[in-house]
Amino acid sequence: MTRVAILGAAGYTALELIKILLRHPEAEIITLADRLDGRPHVASIHPSLGGRLDLCLETLTPAELAARAECVFGCLPHGVSASVIPHLLDAGTRVVDFSADYRLDDPEVFATWYNQKHPDPDRLGKVIYGLPELFREGIAGARLIANPGCFPTSAVLPLAPLLKAGVIRPEGIIVDSKTGVSGAGRTPRLTTHYPECNESISAYNLGRHRHTPEIDQILRMACGKPVEVIFSPHLVPMDRGILTTTYSLPDGEVSEEKVLQTLRDFYADEPFVRVVDHLPGTKDSIGTNFCDVTARVVRGRVITISCLDNLIKGASGAAVQNFNLMFGFPETAGF
Amino acid sequence: MTRVAILGAAGYTALELIKILLRHPEAEIITLADRLDGRPHVASIHPSLGGRLDLCLETLTPAELAARAECVFGCLPHGVSASVIPHLLDAGTRVVDFSADYRLDDPEVFATWYNQKHPDPDRLGKVIYGLPELFREGIAGARLIANPGCFPTSAVLPLAPLLKAGVIRPEGIIVDSKTGVSGAGRTPRLTTHYPECNESISAYNLGRHRHTPEIDQILRMACGKPVEVIFSPHLVPMDRGILTTTYSLPDGEVSEEKVLQTLRDFYADEPFVRVVDHLPGTKDSIGTNFCDVTARVVRGRVITISCLDNLIKGASGAAVQNFNLMFGFPETAGF
Amino acid sequence: MTRVAILGAAGYTALELIKILLRHPEAEIITLADRLDGRPHVASIHPSLGGRLDLCLETLTPAELAARAECVFGCLPHGVSASVIPHLLDAGTRVVDFSADYRLDDPEVFATWYNQKHPDPDRLGKVIYGLPELFREGIAGARLIANPGCFPTSAVLPLAPLLKAGVIRPEGIIVDSKTGVSGAGRTPRLTTHYPECNESISAYNLGRHRHTPEIDQILRMACGKPVEVIFSPHLVPMDRGILTTTYSLPDGEVSEEKVLQTLRDFYADEPFVRVVDHLPGTKDSIGTNFCDVTARVVRGRVITISCLDNLIKGASGAAVQNFNLMFGFPETAGF
Amino acid sequence: MTRVAILGAAGYTALELIKILLRHPEAEIITLADRLDGRPHVASIHPSLGGRLDLCLETLTPAELAARAECVFGCLPHGVSASVIPHLLDAGTRVVDFSADYRLDDPEVFATWYNQKHPDPDRLGKVIYGLPELFREGIAGARLIANPGCFPTSAVLPLAPLLKAGVIRPEGIIVDSKTGVSGAGRTPRLTTHYPECNESISAYNLGRHRHTPEIDQILRMACGKPVEVIFSPHLVPMDRGILTTTYSLPDGEVSEEKVLQTLRDFYADEPFVRVVDHLPGTKDSIGTNFCDVTARVVRGRVITISCLDNLIKGASGAAVQNFNLMFGFPETAGF
Repeated sequence: MTRVAILGAAGYTALELIKILLRHPEAEIITLADRLDGRPHVASIHPSLGGRLDLCLETLTPAELAARAECVFGCLPHGVSASVIPHLLDAGTRVVDFSADYRLDDPEVFATWYNQKHPDPDRLGKVIYGLPELFREGIAGARLIANPGCFPTSAVLPLAPLLKAGVIRPEGIIVDSKTGVSGAGRTPRLTTHYPECNESISAYNLGRHRHTPEIDQILRMACGKPVEVIFSPHLVPMDRGILTTTYSLPDGEVSEEKVLQTLRDFYADEPFVRVVDHLPGTKDSIGTNFCDVTARVVRGRVITISCLDNLIKGASGAAVQNFNLMFGFPETAGF
Repeated sequence: MTRVAILGAAGYTALELIKILLRHPEAEIITLADRLDGRPHVASIHPSLGGRLDLCLETLTPAELAARAECVFGCLPHGVSASVIPHLLDAGTRVVDFSADYRLDDPEVFATWYNQKHPDPDRLGKVIYGLPELFREGIAGARLIANPGCFPTSAVLPLAPLLKAGVIRPEGIIVDSKTGVSGAGRTPRLTTHYPECNESISAYNLGRHRHTPEIDQILRMACGKPVEVIFSPHLVPMDRGILTTTYSLPDGEVSEEKVLQTLRDFYADEPFVRVVDHLPGTKDSIGTNFCDVTARVVRGRVITISCLDNLIKGASGAAVQNFNLMFGFPETAGF
Repeated sequence: MTRVAILGAAGYTALELIKILLRHPEAEIITLADRLDGRPHVASIHPSLGGRLDLCLETLTPAELAARAECVFGCLPHGVSASVIPHLLDAGTRVVDFSADYRLDDPEVFATWYNQKHPDPDRLGKVIYGLPELFREGIAGARLIANPGCFPTSAVLPLAPLLKAGVIRPEGIIVDSKTGVSGAGRTPRLTTHYPECNESISAYNLGRHRHTPEIDQILRMACGKPVEVIFSPHLVPMDRGILTTTYSLPDGEVSEEKVLQTLRDFYADEPFVRVVDHLPGTKDSIGTNFCDVTARVVRGRVITISCLDNLIKGASGAAVQNFNLMFGFPETAGF
Repeated sequence: MTRVAILGAAGYTALELIKILLRHPEAEIITLADRLDGRPHVASIHPSLGGRLDLCLETLTPAELAARAECVFGCLPHGVSASVIPHLLDAGTRVVDFSADYRLDDPEVFATWYNQKHPDPDRLGKVIYGLPELFREGIAGARLIANPGCFPTSAVLPLAPLLKAGVIRPEGIIVDSKTGVSGAGRTPRLTTHYPECNESISAYNLGRHRHTPEIDQILRMACGKPVEVIFSPHLVPMDRGILTTTYSLPDGEVSEEKVLQTLRDFYADEPFVRVVDHLPGTKDSIGTNFCDVTARVVRGRVITISCLDNLIKGASGAAVQNFNLMFGFPETAGF
C-alpha cells in the first residue's frame, strides 16, 4: 500500500478524492491536513464519510507531511500552493497539485492572469501537465504533477485531437462552457447562495477566466501553432458537471463522420474517454471518471460537445489517474 | 397615494414587498433604507428591479423616515427591530414590523426563545398580530402591526378553525413543516451554500425553532386552552414555498367531510385562503398571496396540509394585506 | 373591456397568459378552449388559478370562438394552428398566434424544417412578426400576428441592432442558447422526466432546431443581407428562463463601449429591453416581460448575453404586448 | 464468480444495481432482461453505462434466465413479479425480488392495498423479508428474498429498536416521509414532469400509500403488538434520497440520551447504519448503502430522523446485502 496524504482536506475536491482512494486497492490515506481550529474529525467536516475514514484534520508542516506520505495530493488555493510544494518536494515526497500554480509554462502569463508574481517561477515549464490522454509518457517518472483544470480538460479533450490531425483551424475557436456550482468551491458567497443561483443561469468572468491561458497553452502544444480561444463560462443550477460546447472552423473539407472518426481513433485505447454518437448529458458521466465527447458539423462549423464531472475527471479522478501512472498501478485502479 | 418606506431593503422579503407595492394603486414607495456602504441604487442590490424603481438605499434615522413616510415596513432582524420601532412610532408614522419582536405577548417567553432581554417589553401584549383571517378587527386602527412568521401562518391557518370549532384537541399537535431556502434570508452561510443544500433535505432546529412559542400563542388564543405544539422544520431544495403537515387528535367523532366543511365555512369569505379537496403542492401558491389548505382523516388522526409562499403570504403579502386594512384600502389591493 | 379567448388553454404558455390578462385593465377573458374530455374547470387543469378565474375549458368551433371574442390567443401546436386560424379570421376575430405557422415567409423553408406542407401557404409573407421592438408599426393594424419564438426573441434582440448599425458582420454568427425545461411544453416525455433532466445539462437538436430559419429570417430583415446562424440549444435544469450567448465578428474596429452604446441607443425608449453593464442571470427577468441584454468584446469577438423568461417575453408577455398595440392600449398595460 | 441476471433492467433500481455489481468482486452480470422492442444495448438505455458493461437487454423466459444465472434480481412491477418468480424458483435459481409481491404475510392485506388477488398466495408468510438488520439469520438459506420497500426501511430502522426495547409505545406512531423523485420510477407522468414537480413539495397518497401495511407488519414483528402507523409521503424536488421523521409517545420516562443509546446499542455492529448525534441531511448518504439515524425528545415526544438513498439502501444496495448473505460473501462486498 502506498501511503498518501491530502493537504487542504476540507474542500469538495478533497472529499471526492477521499471517496475514490477509499476504494483504491493500493493506496492508504495516512493523513489529512488543513488549517482549521482544533483537530476536527473528518466526519465532522464531511458527514458523508462517517464510518468510512477515522482520521482528524491536522495542521502539519511540509516536513511532517513528507515524513508520513509517499504522495501528497495538494488541494490548496493557487498562490498558496506554490509556496508549500517546493518544501514537500525537497523533503522527498511526490506531489499531485490541484492548484493552477504549475500548469502554465510562463511566469509572465501567470502574473497577468493571476495578478501576482509566481512564488516559484524557476520550476515553470518543467512540470508535467497531468492530462494522461495527451502527456502519459512524462507522468510515470514525475515527482510533481500539475493536475489540469476542470474547464481545460473539458475543452482540450475534444479539441486537441482535431487540431493535431489538422481537421480544424487553430484561429477563432470558441469554448462555451456550462458548469455546476461545486466548481466554485466550498466557501459561501452571495453568487453561490442557494436562492441566488438556483433556477438561474448566468455567464461569469467572460473573457477573463483564468483557465483561458491554460486552454491556449495545451492546445498550442497539441498543434504547434498559437491558439487564443474565446472562453465563456456559465454557472448552471446543478451540483456538478461541465458541458463544453466548442465551435471551430474546419481546415479544408470536413464531414461529421470524419470528425467523429478522428476522435474515435485518437481515444480508441483510452479507458476514460467515451466518443459517443448521441448528444450526451452531464448526468451520464457524473460520479465517474469518464469524459463523453461527440461532434457535429453544422453549416460549415465543427461543433464538439464534451461532458465530465468537474470534481472527478475534472479534478480528483484525474489526480488518481496521475497517481496510478506515477506509482505504476493500473491506470483504472480505484475506479 | 400613501407614502411608504422600507427599512432593511436589501433582503428577500423587501424585494417581494417592493414588487407588490409597485403594482399597488394606492401606495408610493418613497424611500428605501438599509445600512450599506455608500448609497447604492436599488437595481445594483436587486437587479430584477432595474427599470422599475429609481431609488437608492439610504442610511436614515427613524425621524427622517417618519418625516417622509406615512407607513414604514420594517424588515430588520429581531432584537434590532424593537430598538428602532419605538422611535418611528414616537415620530408619528405607522409601522408593519416583519421581525418577531412584537409577536409574543410575554417578555419572559421572548427572553427564553430569543436568548435576549426584550428591548421594549412594555409594548408586548398590546400589539396586534397581523393575521387578518383571525384578527382583522384590530388591524384597521393599529399604529403598529406584528407581521406573522411564515411557519406560524402555515400552521395556524389550518389548525385555528379546527380548534375553535372543537373538532380537534389542543394536546399533542404535531407540526411538520417543509420550507424553501429563501426562508433563511440572504446572508450566505454554509448550510445554504448551493452544493450543500441542493439535492438534500434535512431537519433543523428540531424542537428549538423560535416560531414554536408563536404558534402556541396564536392557537391558544384560538381555542382558549394551553397549546404546546411539536414543531419540526425541514429545509427543502427549492427557492420558496412552505408545506406544513399537521397531525392532531379529533375531539370526539369526526369525519373527513366534517373537517373540510369546518375549514370551508371558516374561510368562505376570505380572499386569500383556498380550501381545496386535492392535495396541493407549494407551486400552486408560489408568487401569490394564497394559502391552500386541505385535510384528511387517517386512522383516527386529523391531518392537514397547507401551502403558501413564505415570502408572500408568509411575509410581504401579509404585510400588504395589513397595510390595506390599516389605511382603508380594499384588502386585495396590489395583488 | 376587450373580450379575449384562449385556444389551447391547458398548456404552460396559456397559464402565463391568463395570469397576465387577469391583471390587465382592458381585457376580459371570456372563453377558454381546448380539446379535453368533459368540460373541466380551469382550476382542475391549472390549480394555481383556483379562486382567480371561474371558467371551464370547452371544445369550440372557430365560429363559436369568433362569436364570443374580439381577440383569440392561439396556443396550438404548429401545423394544427394554420388549419384553424383561417377560419377564425374569416369569422371576423383578430388572432395572436403562438405557433410557428405564420412566422416564416417562405413555404419551402417551412416544409424543409417542419417536415410538412404548409396548410395555408398563401398567407405566408404577409403576416406581421410580432416583435414590437423591430416591427411595431405593422402591429397596430394587423388582424393576425405571428408571435415570435422564445429562442428567436433572445437571439434577435441583441443581434439585430448590431447588424443594422453595421457593428457586426452577418456571416458565421453563433447562437448558443440555454433554456429551462418549461420550453418543452407540458406533455410528459422521458427527456423532461425529472430524474432524467434534473442535475444535468445537455445539448439537443444541434443544428436542427426549428427556430434556426426564424432567426435567420429576422436577422436578414434587420441587415438586408443573407444570414445563416449556427444555433445550439441546451436544456438546463430549471423551470424557466433563456440565456443566449452569441459570438460574432466585428465589422471593422469595434470597442466594447461602442457595442454597448449601439444597444443602449437602439433600446433607449423601449419599455421591455434593459441594456445592462453587468452580466445578467435569467433570474433577474423571470416572471417579467423584460429582456436583459449586455455585450463584451473578447479577443476580437463580439459576445452578447441576453436573458428573458421563455414563457413571458418569450411567449405570453410578448403576446400581450402585441394585443396592446393591436387594440390601442398602452404597450405596458397588464404588466 | 457468481453468475447473476437482472430482470426488468431498464429502470432506475436496475441501473443502480448494475453499478454496484460492476464493482462486486464475486458477482458477474451475465444477463440483462426486459421487455423492449429489439435487443437494445444497455448503453442505449442507460448511457452512463457506456464502456462499462457490454450486454444487450433481452426478452427471456424464466427457464432461460434460470439456466444462465445462479441469482436473479427481479425488478418487475408488483403483480407481475409474483407471476414470474415461481417459475424462476422452480427452475432452480435463487431470487431477490424488488417488488412488493412477497413482502406482506397476508393475501387479504395484499388484496386490500394492491387492489388485486395475489397470484401466488400460498408462498406468502414463508418468504424472508430482506432487511438484514432485523432478519439476518433467515437470509443465508433463503431461495427467495422479498427486498424491502424504500419507505419501510427508512421507517423501520429507527423505530424497530425503540419498540423492541419498550422505549416507545406502538400506538399512534406518525411517519412523515419526504422522498426524491426517482422513487416514482422511470415512466414519465405529469406529476413527475420537470416543470410540474420542480420547485414544489407536495404530499401524495396520504393514508393510502401501499407501504403502510408493510411498515405495520415489520414493526408488529419487532414488538409483538399490533401497530398501525399514520404514514404520509411527500414528494421533494431532488433526484434521490428519503428523509423520514417519526413521532411517537415514550413508554414511561425517557431521555434523549436513552433513546440515542438504544439505537447505538442496537446498531453497534451494523456496517450500514450510522447512529449520529447531529441532524443528518439526505445528501450525507446519497450514493451509499448507509442509513443515518438520530433522535430527539421534544415536549414529551420521541422524534426520529432517518436518511437513506432510496435507490441504494432503499432498493439495490439492500439487494446486494441480501445477495452477499445468501451466497456467503462478506456483507459489505461490492460497496
